[in-house]
Amino acid sequence: MVKQEMVYEGKAKQVFSTADENLVVIHFKDDATAGNGEKKGTIENKGIINNKITATLYEMLEKNGIRTHYKERLSDRDQLCEKLEIIPLEVIVRNVIAGSMARTLHIEEGTTPKTTIFEICYKNDECGDPLINDHHAVAMGLTTYEELEKVYATTAQINDLLKTTFDSEGITLVDFKIEFGRNSQGEVLLADEITPDTCRLWDKETGQKLDKDRFRRDLGGIEEAYIEILKRLGA
Amino acid sequence: MVKQEMVYEGKAKQVFSTADENLVVIHFKDDATAGNGEKKGTIENKGIINNKITATLYEMLEKNGIRTHYKERLSDRDQLCEKLEIIPLEVIVRNVIAGSMARTLHIEEGTTPKTTIFEICYKNDECGDPLINDHHAVAMGLTTYEELEKVYATTAQINDLLKTTFDSEGITLVDFKIEFGRNSQGEVLLADEITPDTCRLWDKETGQKLDKDRFRRDLGGIEEAYIEILKRLGA
Repeated sequence: MVKQEMVYEGKAKQVFSTADENLVVIHFKDDATAGNGEKKGTIENKGIINNKITATLYEMLEKNGIRTHYKERLSDRDQLCEKLEIIPLEVIVRNVIAGSMARTLHIEEGTTPKTTIFEICYKNDECGDPLINDHHAVAMGLTTYEELEKVYATTAQINDLLKTTFDSEGITLVDFKIEFGRNSQGEVLLADEITPDTCRLWDKETGQKLDKDRFRRDLGGIEEAYIEILKRLGA
Repeated sequence: MVKQEMVYEGKAKQVFSTADENLVVIHFKDDATAGNGEKKGTIENKGIINNKITATLYEMLEKNGIRTHYKERLSDRDQLCEKLEIIPLEVIVRNVIAGSMARTLHIEEGTTPKTTIFEICYKNDECGDPLINDHHAVAMGLTTYEELEKVYATTAQINDLLKTTFDSEGITLVDFKIEFGRNSQGEVLLADEITPDTCRLWDKETGQKLDKDRFRRDLGGIEEAYIEILKRLGA
């Protein structure tokens, strides 16, 4: 499938139209940003690594009954996906408290909560991707209560599958962010990517961070961490 | 019922123990704060006015089947209440978008949302009373999912009753904040106050703000606005 026009450019990916109006090619870049774009840089080969990791994880999810936009990996940096209308929500799952939740609520990073935490943020750069709740999302016309119910149920299933996958490779899935979209039939599918850019992944033995926090917090060894995840997943 | 020791002091009220361990006296002060205590001042006679307004509204709510901590007004600034363990959540209802929601989500103040918006904030000065969701509240051990269900259902009933009351006096109930607490039997009751300190109230004809936004935004005529609400409620 040949890339045509670039129809969207995000911080880490580009989306291209194809001859089939229901398919797009997603191109993974090396660009990295943090703090809502305040910090910018590149992580060498990140696009190649994240394309492979996403392909591996989305194939695993599909095998386990989760419907995703992913079709096939086309090249080092490109994958073929179903074209979706993205729901402008970042859906976040927290198995361990870290990052913004730790900061906002003054909870020590690494605390295990009594219950799995699901969050939605309004995907809007100008507003700074703020935390919202279901009522805000529906009131703004971003989604419906019914669609959110589906999104949360699917997200819980995805969390269980990802936790098991990472756990068996000696990695704690601390938290992750996913996005959903609607296909031409109005069905809600998992979109975007699942990579060390969008997950917090801690080595179970050493506690070492194997994710984008190495970039956000200037910890060094960024590319090595991403490659380590790739290796452990056998991707 | 005679006031004994002051057991709690908030920004606008003091709470005193009494000879009965299940009862407290709540004393309404003239102190006013805004922006999480950044702006401080006093509004003349506010304590007297808000004691009367709360008494009137809580009596109306009780008559309509809402269980509250309110027992009786003892004097200009004091009311007798059931002693509660306060659930550290600010429960917010928005019928019209204003204030923090308008600012955070870049929505024009005065917009009527498609659906009534319910929010909870973590009542914690150090954290700045941040917006949270049900999972955060349960994970932090502030409440349970079952208790939240009760809180939301009661809040929706309170909203309907308040909207009707204010509407018949020519006032739009834009939004309001309430708090709940548990009595010695573990029952969840409405606590705190309902006043121009905790509601946004707009005159339906002129659009004039008759609430604490006059203090927050230095609009003048603050005491007059509070007295106007008192008058319209016939308190």
